Formats: sequence, structure tokens, C-alpha cells
Amino acid sequence: MIVVIQCTDQVGLVAAISGVMANHGINIVTMREFVDTLEKRFFARLVVEPYKDIEKIQVSLKNALPTDALVEIKPYPEKKIVVLVTKEYHCLSDILVRNHFKTLGARVEAVIGNYEVLGNICERFDVPFHYISHEGKEKADYEQEIKQKLGHYVFDYLVLAKYMRILSPDFVASFPNRVINIHHSFLPAFIGANPYKRAFERGVKLIGATAHFVTNDLDEGPIIVQKTIPVNHNHSVVDMVRAGKEIEASVLAKALHLVFEDRVLVFNNKTIVFE
Amino acid sequence: MIVVIQCTDQVGLVAAISGVMANHGINIVTMREFVDTLEKRFFARLVVEPYKDIEKIQVSLKNALPTDALVEIKPYPEKKIVVLVTKEYHCLSDILVRNHFKTLGARVEAVIGNYEVLGNICERFDVPFHYISHEGKEKADYEQEIKQKLGHYVFDYLVLAKYMRILSPDFVASFPNRVINIHHSFLPAFIGANPYKRAFERGVKLIGATAHFVTNDLDEGPIIVQKTIPVNHNHSVVDMVRAGKEIEASVLAKALHLVFEDRVLVFNNKTIVFE
Amino acid sequence: MIVVIQCTDQVGLVAAISGVMANHGINIVTMREFVDTLEKRFFARLVVEPYKDIEKIQVSLKNALPTDALVEIKPYPEKKIVVLVTKEYHCLSDILVRNHFKTLGARVEAVIGNYEVLGNICERFDVPFHYISHEGKEKADYEQEIKQKLGHYVFDYLVLAKYMRILSPDFVASFPNRVINIHHSFLPAFIGANPYKRAFERGVKLIGATAHFVTNDLDEGPIIVQKTIPVNHNHSVVDMVRAGKEIEASVLAKALHLVFEDRVLVFNNKTIVFE
Amino acid sequence: MIVVIQCTDQVGLVAAISGVMANHGINIVTMREFVDTLEKRFFARLVVEPYKDIEKIQVSLKNALPTDALVEIKPYPEKKIVVLVTKEYHCLSDILVRNHFKTLGARVEAVIGNYEVLGNICERFDVPFHYISHEGKEKADYEQEIKQKLGHYVFDYLVLAKYMRILSPDFVASFPNRVINIHHSFLPAFIGANPYKRAFERGVKLIGATAHFVTNDLDEGPIIVQKTIPVNHNHSVVDMVRAGKEIEASVLAKALHLVFEDRVLVFNNKTIVFE
Repeated sequence: MIVVIQCTDQVGLVAAISGVMANHGINIVTMREFVDTLEKRFFARLVVEPYKDIEKIQVSLKNALPTDALVEIKPYPEKKIVVLVTKEYHCLSDILVRNHFKTLGARVEAVIGNYEVLGNICERFDVPFHYISHEGKEKADYEQEIKQKLGHYVFDYLVLAKYMRILSPDFVASFPNRVINIHHSFLPAFIGANPYKRAFERGVKLIGATAHFVTNDLDEGPIIVQKTIPVNHNHSVVDMVRAGKEIEASVLAKALHLVFEDRVLVFNNKTIVFE
Repeated sequence: MIVVIQCTDQVGLVAAISGVMANHGINIVTMREFVDTLEKRFFARLVVEPYKDIEKIQVSLKNALPTDALVEIKPYPEKKIVVLVTKEYHCLSDILVRNHFKTLGARVEAVIGNYEVLGNICERFDVPFHYISHEGKEKADYEQEIKQKLGHYVFDYLVLAKYMRILSPDFVASFPNRVINIHHSFLPAFIGANPYKRAFERGVKLIGATAHFVTNDLDEGPIIVQKTIPVNHNHSVVDMVRAGKEIEASVLAKALHLVFEDRVLVFNNKTIVFE
Repeated sequence: MIVVIQCTDQVGLVAAISGVMANHGINIVTMREFVDTLEKRFFARLVVEPYKDIEKIQVSLKNALPTDALVEIKPYPEKKIVVLVTKEYHCLSDILVRNHFKTLGARVEAVIGNYEVLGNICERFDVPFHYISHEGKEKADYEQEIKQKLGHYVFDYLVLAKYMRILSPDFVASFPNRVINIHHSFLPAFIGANPYKRAFERGVKLIGATAHFVTNDLDEGPIIVQKTIPVNHNHSVVDMVRAGKEIEASVLAKALHLVFEDRVLVFNNKTIVFE
Repeated sequence: MIVVIQCTDQVGLVAAISGVMANHGINIVTMREFVDTLEKRFFARLVVEPYKDIEKIQVSLKNALPTDALVEIKPYPEKKIVVLVTKEYHCLSDILVRNHFKTLGARVEAVIGNYEVLGNICERFDVPFHYISHEGKEKADYEQEIKQKLGHYVFDYLVLAKYMRILSPDFVASFPNRVINIHHSFLPAFIGANPYKRAFERGVKLIGATAHFVTNDLDEGPIIVQKTIPVNHNHSVVDMVRAGKEIEASVLAKALHLVFEDRVLVFNNKTIVFE
């Protein structure tokens, strides 16, 4: 059972939390805290032994903590996700394979693509694929169609697995801290389009990828995972794109794993990741 | 002020520890725990606000914890070290520079070398250097000489900064968990002499370094830090040695930093590192 | 068109090779050489513009080079492979996905498993799967069955994608420098079985994977690619196995990519990799 | 002896170059080429056996190559450098130590600081230190003073080892491709001042360093080496600065090593690095 807490920092919080657990005879398997001393904010993630009456613990914790405390208790159920894609297969395939072998930590409820090309791989894995083209449509209408389709599913996160269109602030606002994107550069370098082309032109010696929650501002949301790999003068733009795909799939997989295990807390456009 | 604890695991330890702190009105800045579920052992490191009566806290913690609890409270004083060297300068210089600019987290009390060659760099940094040759001496006598010289100094750790002789079990036993070595391979690969030559002959694609506490068995003590770097067919043995020096100095520096901040706990020939 | 050469080193080899190309009006796109000065051996890989009469170039090169020269000219056709597996899906899936999307650089002709469990994923990708159990069979008989099955296919490489049985020297000798294995440790550390368990027990701070050609001696063949990732005291054996799978799939993918592009030359149980 | 060449690409360049060497009976130890197919430009670096008449080879190469060919032949003499610093010691100390032990690949002729604080460490290594304050001076006057001081030295490169002032385009133009800077971020992220503070505020999960040649535009010159290291929510700005120093010193050391061995060719604001 996972307990995630954030609140204003004050003396005795760890004692309070662990006291609640001890009072109910719940063993703490692991407990991780972090205090943002600048923001005077306290964050914690506990893995505790299962307990039948979650609400009771919730109430006890609320009583023991500052009034602004956010407390989430999760009996560790599998998460559910919907994936948005465009044409590139590498991130989606990685997700579908893990989903198929039950190692994703989440269940893929559906995939929505603005091109048809990835329908076939979804079919091979018996995952519903919905083709919703953006062509010839107003953005608002196009997004409304997606929303309508999403309305048929219950899901925890919307994963943009190389979805190459920019979602409107309105759309994103409907799913706060629930939309996860993989950006093909080490942000904040090369925000926006064509990062590999620009990396090539600048002559950088490394390229990277960034998984982040999506907020209103393009590529400006809370970063979850970033990695870089070395490149050199031998790499053409095509080579960089090719090498980049490997790191993109790997960074997104890592970020999803962390999010699905409730290891990522968001505050002030930044993440606390209890790895 | 740093508090380091290890003991048999049981329910309520975090509550007990944080309760003691709360009772004395001591704010916990950070607290890190780890439970080795296989060994049923609990480890914790706390950074807490300074408190004048350390002994009182020590007693309170002892009373609140299992009887086998090891509790160390450190008012965060600078550590003191003696360094043993042979001929290679890179690790020693790195230590001397950090020592000189007060960023080592420890004070170098003295350097002892079995060759004279590194005396000059010590002199340049006003650090005492003692030349104790091993040549023509029985090992026991040679080590006795070192021990005698060490007797003139108060120190927390003995750092082997590319000291190329094997210390006897007797010698090592005098300083349990206090001798830190840098080995020039990613252990357990290439235990013993000439790791780079053997790495070259095997045609490996990476080389590395390992910082570890020294125990009786050669290169078998608890590992603190390890890193690797890529090599390829272009690397001769000399190139590997050269590249290796960089990683050796970097790994030793990292390990010393962690040890000097009391972030490394030892149990069962392994380390818990609260990074 | 790719040209791969190795021979005894002598003055003028680059001039000789590039002279042959210039004489036939063939533009050299890239040329990479390496001289092993200890072994006095010369290695080169050229990417040159296509030329209709490969045999003519072969003869010209042979005439221009020392008599012991090995010259291979490849008009860059796709390679063909057969994959051997046991139960783990991660390396095989990665290969199947790339194969499906034509980015593997080779075509998977068939998959042979000593368990049935991975048949389903092969079927999903329309790749023939053959179940050949080892149970209750003499090793020689079991391997004879595999050989017989392999006899139905034309293939360049046999890829062991987490195939957990040891092939006999006889079997391996039938495919010199054509069997590629992924080993789940950074060799030569943890040769043989259960590397993660042993890594856990030793308390190492990094784990890794090694892709290598298979020779008679267990895990002793020429290394193609190695990588490591950091681990710490938080990692149980299960966590290490889980993290290890990521690096295994990634290392094998990289090695296959290099081999399929004829970038890997083998000599004296080591590889020259023109990356 | 090292030969560095760049010119317009055409068929037969490798043959021409290696032919010249063969004609003079000069053995080529290693030869590396690169063709920028977009720019139709050819780059090569050869290590060849020493030859007494360098001018003769120069002429032969010029005759054998396109008229725009740049040919540099270096009998592998040690390079000479002057170092500019401000207050931070870590990059300078690293350079001074390597200089002292003759492993820098260059000789430090002098150090110039706009603060006095690093004079002491230079003195300890018997390297001339010149204190030239910028305070209360017009930029042009201040730079004129530096130039005047530089006039007393013969040097190949001017190394900015955490020199925290921006040099004017005029100043930089006096030393084309001869000024090397270490910037404390992975460019193009966080160009300009306070990169760690901005990295902290953005909540990035990695920080880095970039060594580059200095051109008119701030932090926009040809990149030589870049590396990143992971950070997380535990890192305050101070922690990032501290961790960053390690990577800065390491990246600058690597870049200097490559430049001093004539492995770095510059073209079109990018580098070709024959590692």
C-alpha cells in the first residue's frame, strides 16, 4: 500500500506520520521524505503493509498533519492509461510489449492516433486503436473528438508517445498532472520543433530526451526524467534521429515506471522523484 | 548534526526515532532510512538541527531502540585523514588540492609514501610527508614502521591513494572500516595486479574504478563507489592506464565525500550509501 | 557498398587500397583504418559508392595487398538471422519490433525456443517459431535437432537472445564468428550463472551487460558492446534483474546494429569496432 | 608527427595523401578522415613517423590536393598556453597539477586573474601569476592591459578556466580558434549567467558542462566536449554548483587534451574531433 503526502513543513511531521502507522500496527516497509527548505514544504512517500480500512488511516493522517496536507493512499492497483501517437512506432511498441507481458505497471486501455499507420501494431497486441485525423479540422473540433473518445475510457494518465501535435491549454487543463510527454531533446535546450536538426546545426556533442508532465506552456511542464547520449561529427541529422529514438523510448519507459509506482510528486512546476 | 543508526528491524522504529527528536524539540532536516528485509536490519541517517547535549539524545535513542542498536551522533566536525601513496600523483594531488581549498570535508594530517617521489607535491601544499621505504624489510617490520608513524597522528580514516602494496590482515584489522582504497578496475573484474593489462588482453569495452573499505581479503571489502568509462580497440594499455587515472581520482573523490559526510553505513561486507 | 579488410601491416596499405578505388573511379564515402601495432595487423572498413563488378575490385585489392589479406566486399544486402531463446521476452521482443518495422538491419528468418512460452509473440509478428525442448534429451541429440532445424534456413548470424543453455564447442564451431550472445553482466565479472544474485551478494554499485561472439569457452568470446548502469543498496536481486533487462536489450540491439552494418572485425579473440 | 588537412572533397584524396607519404617512405601510424557530405568538405588527421624535411612534405601535399587545402604539419612539440581565471580554483588547479607532472600536453606559460585569490596556488607551482583587475576600468582599457601582458608570452592557446567576464569581439578576434572556454551548462541550454540557478528553477534532472572555442557570440562558438551528470530534487543550487565543478574540470581537461593533440578541426562553427 502506498501513501503519498505533501504539506507545509513543520517540526514533528515524520513522528506524526510514523506514529499514525505504529498506532494502527502498520509496518512501514520504506519511507522517503524530502523537505524543500526554500519553499518550506514537506513531501513523503511510504510503502506500508496492506491495511483493510484505508479511510481510517486517511482520517488519522489528516488529523495528525497540517490542514493543507494532501494525502493519497493507494492500495497499489494497476494504473490505466490511454496513449496518443502520431506515426513513430518506437515508444508505442515499447509500451505495448511491456503491457502485453504485464511489466508496464499499467494497463493500456486504448491508443489514439492522428494517423492510421500504428493501428496495425495495436491490433497485433489486441489493444483498441482509434484513428482520429486532425486534417481539415479546427483544432477545437479535433480535440473535442479526442475528448469524446477519451470519455469512453477510465484512465489515470494520458501518455503522449511521440504525439507530434501541440495540445491546447484548454485540453491540457482537463487532465492536470495526468498528461505525460516525451520530448526529443534535453530540455530546456531545443524547445519546440526539429530538435535534432537544430542540435546538428549547433554541433552539440550530446543529444537527449526529456519526459515531463504537460502544462499550458510548450515543453515547460515538470520534468520527470532526462538522459543524454554522446554524438559526434559523424552523426548526420538522420543518425541523430535514429540514436535519439533509443533514448526517447528508454526515458519514457523509466518515467512511466516511476509515475505508475507513485514515486513522482509534483509541486511548483517541479517534481520530487523518490527513486 | 548527523545521527547514524543501525539495528534489528521492528515496527515503529521511525516513529521512535522521530519521537525522540520531537520530544527534544529538534527539527529533522533530512531523514533517510533503509530496511534490509532479507537481513531484517534497519539503517538510518538523520541530519538534525544542532543540539547542545548530545549525550542526552544518545541515551534517549538507546532507550527507544532495540538493544542491539548502534547509534552515532556527530556534531559534524571535520574528519582527519592520513594518506598512503606509492608513486602515482593523480589521486593524491586531487586530495591535496581539495584539502588546500577546504572542500575535502576532511583535513589531511600527513602523507606516507613508500617512495620519495610524491614528497615534493606535499611540500608545496605544506602537508607533512613521511618516506618509509619497504625495500629490504620484512613486511611485518615495514608495517610496524608505518604504524609507529601513524601513532603520531589522530585520524579518522586511512586513505590508500594508489598505494600499491598489499597490507597484511593484521595491519588492516587495526583500523576496521577505516581504511579506504581505490582499486583500478570495476570489481569483481580484474581483482589484483595489472587490471588494465588484463582488460586490454580480454578486449573489454569499458574500464572502471572501485573505491572500497579494505578488509583482510584482497579487493574484497565493502564497495562504496564504482564507475566505468567506455574504451575501444584504439586504446593501448597505456591509453587505458591514462583514461583510468581520471576515473580513479573521480571515484575516490566521490567516495571520500560520501564517507566524510557520514553517508556510508557498513553491514555484512556491503555498504548502505545515503546519497 | 562496404569493403572490409584485414592483413599484416606494412607501409603503403592505405595508398594501395585508395589507389585501387581511384583507379576504378569509385568514390570513398568513408574509410576507417586501425593498425594493431603490437600484432602488426591492419584493419579497414570502407563505405564506397556502388560498383557493378565486385569481383574485379576483389581481384584488384587482392593484388594490391599482402598475400594474407582477407577482403570482403558486401553490396550491402540485408542480413538474415535466426534467434535462439528460452523464456525471457525482452530481447526477443525488441528484435521482433525492429524486424517488423524494418529497422533491424536484418531479417529474422525464424525463432527457436527450448520453451514454448515465446511462441505467441512470434506468431503476433508472423515470424516462424520452433519449439525444441531440451528436456529428457542428451545434449548432443538436442543440439542435433537444433542444427537440423537451422538447416532449413539460410542465415548470416545466430543470435542468442537470452538463450539460457550452454552450447557445446562442437555446435559453436559450426558457426565461427556467427553466434552472438547477450550476457547479463559486465564481463569478465560474474562469468556463468546467476550474475545478478552474485552482484547483489558482492554489493556492487553497478551492473551491466555484454554482447559478444560465442566461442568454445563460456563467456570468453570477443566482446562487441558493454554497458553498465548504477545500482545501490535499495536494489534487491529482483530489482537488479529488472533493471538489467533494460540494459541487456539495449546492449544487444547496439551490438546487432554494429554487426549487421559490418562494423565489427574479429581478430585474436578481440573486436575492432568501427563505430 | 601529426598532419592535419582540410579541403573541398573530391575523389582520390585519401589515395593522394597516402601516396605522398608512401613516396617519401613515411609510415602512416594512424589516419582518420571525415567527409562532410553536406558541405562537400574533407578532413583528415594523420599520425606519421617523423620525417626530417617537413617543408618538402608540405609542398608535396599542397601539390597533390585541391588548391583550397589547409595543411598543417606538426612535429609534435608541446603546446604553450596562458590561462585566464577569476576566483574559482577547480579548473585551474587541475591544469596546474597536470602541468606540474608533465601530463597536460602543454606548458602553462602564465596565469592572469582579475582577482588576486588564485595567485597563491600558482606560486606554489612556480607558475607566473599576473593580477589585472577589471575594476574601475573601461572594458577596452582592461582588455588592452591583458593584451599587453599576453604580448610578453608566446602561446598557442588562451584557456578560460572559469574566467567570469565576457571578452569583447575585438579581443576574441585577435586569437581566432585559439581561445577555449569552459561553460557551466550543457549548451545551448542556459546560455549566459547563472546556469545552475536557472537549472534549479527549471527543475532539470541533469546538469552539464561545455568546452568550446570562443567566438564573438556569447557561448555560441564551436563545441569541443560536453558531458552531463544526473541531479534530482535533493540538489540545492549550491549542491548543483558543487557537483558541476567536478564535471567542469573533467570536461575542460578532456577538451584540452584533444586540442593539444591536434585532434580538433574547426569548420563552419562546428568541430570535427578525431578521438
